[in-house]
Amino acid sequence: MGAEGQQSGQWADVTPDAARRLVTAAVEAFAERGYHATTTRDIAGRAGMSPAALYIHYKTKEELLYRISIVGHRLALDILRRARDSAGSPADRLSEAVRCFVRWHAEHHTTARVVQYELGALAEEHYAEIVALRRDTDAAVRAIVEDGVAAGEFDTPDVPGTTLAVLSLCIDVARWFNAEGKRTPDEVGELYADLALRMVGYAKK
Amino acid sequence: MGAEGQQSGQWADVTPDAARRLVTAAVEAFAERGYHATTTRDIAGRAGMSPAALYIHYKTKEELLYRISIVGHRLALDILRRARDSAGSPADRLSEAVRCFVRWHAEHHTTARVVQYELGALAEEHYAEIVALRRDTDAAVRAIVEDGVAAGEFDTPDVPGTTLAVLSLCIDVARWFNAEGKRTPDEVGELYADLALRMVGYAKK
Repeated sequence: MGAEGQQSGQWADVTPDAARRLVTAAVEAFAERGYHATTTRDIAGRAGMSPAALYIHYKTKEELLYRISIVGHRLALDILRRARDSAGSPADRLSEAVRCFVRWHAEHHTTARVVQYELGALAEEHYAEIVALRRDTDAAVRAIVEDGVAAGEFDTPDVPGTTLAVLSLCIDVARWFNAEGKRTPDEVGELYADLALRMVGYAKK
Repeated sequence: MGAEGQQSGQWADVTPDAARRLVTAAVEAFAERGYHATTTRDIAGRAGMSPAALYIHYKTKEELLYRISIVGHRLALDILRRARDSAGSPADRLSEAVRCFVRWHAEHHTTARVVQYELGALAEEHYAEIVALRRDTDAAVRAIVEDGVAAGEFDTPDVPGTTLAVLSLCIDVARWFNAEGKRTPDEVGELYADLALRMVGYAKK
């Protein structure tokens, strides 16, 4: 977990440095013990700060979870929108979307688990904001699938259901991925890009 | 969550009645607050029992999690082995496996989430036992895929990877499934059975 914690690249937009250290510490603590079993004191301690210093940046533990969740969801959305808007056929763009989305969930599996499994702990207005981001994420992938169907490249009887399944398949990588396992993030991304094309009924013309 | 708690069918093998009530209460508590934030006192209270009465049945909180995990994993394994050993072509058997496995994850999503997301809290020897059951689960589905490839029904370049992906797709239903959502467990099962056939490259002969 430490290795991922040090990959502070995903938190580059969280400033100043102390706020970023707190976010990193919170992700590790939430992943290890769960949101409800973690105190702001635990988080401050992991970040080498006092509870009072934490309070300067985040008024509550929920605010930290919200921050993590927003950053995680925006990154995911960016990845998928970039693929949607890239050049190439629908099959190229779907492959690219799945490859990048899977790689993110494999490389940042600790963050992804917190983001995915602790949604229920968000305050109502924060939850609503995250749900809106998730709808946009879904829409980005659905747009690619719809393009493929319209172009006669994909044979997809249930576009919303298949979109949901493709995203779900990618997200669950965060649950099972093991950095010491047999497959690298890139290898899982390649395999899954092929599987996603099969799911949408892609036929090379 | 209450509705699922009352479906005590999944815990029919846990006896006596008081032990079953404790398991049901523990699942609800773990799902709501996480394993580490739940105390044996919380669980006893939900079951309408005293902490001393809980202690008669389970010496520790971990023993409860282990019980839940064992029962959940054995049920999952039974479902998949039944499908593996059923009559019919590999495509029929894979469809049946996915349909039943998805239905179970949708109907028992609260239990499934606890079983899937709290594995890390198990004691070492219990964890090893669960890992063995998970290997058997994987092997049951892999056997069907291998049969399909051997029969020339499936075109699956990466059998272990595709097996893992099919199982992962089904398991993640527990995360997103919502009993108030648009799709019933049966409908998700049907959709996913079709997607799994696509993933293994099934071609009707």
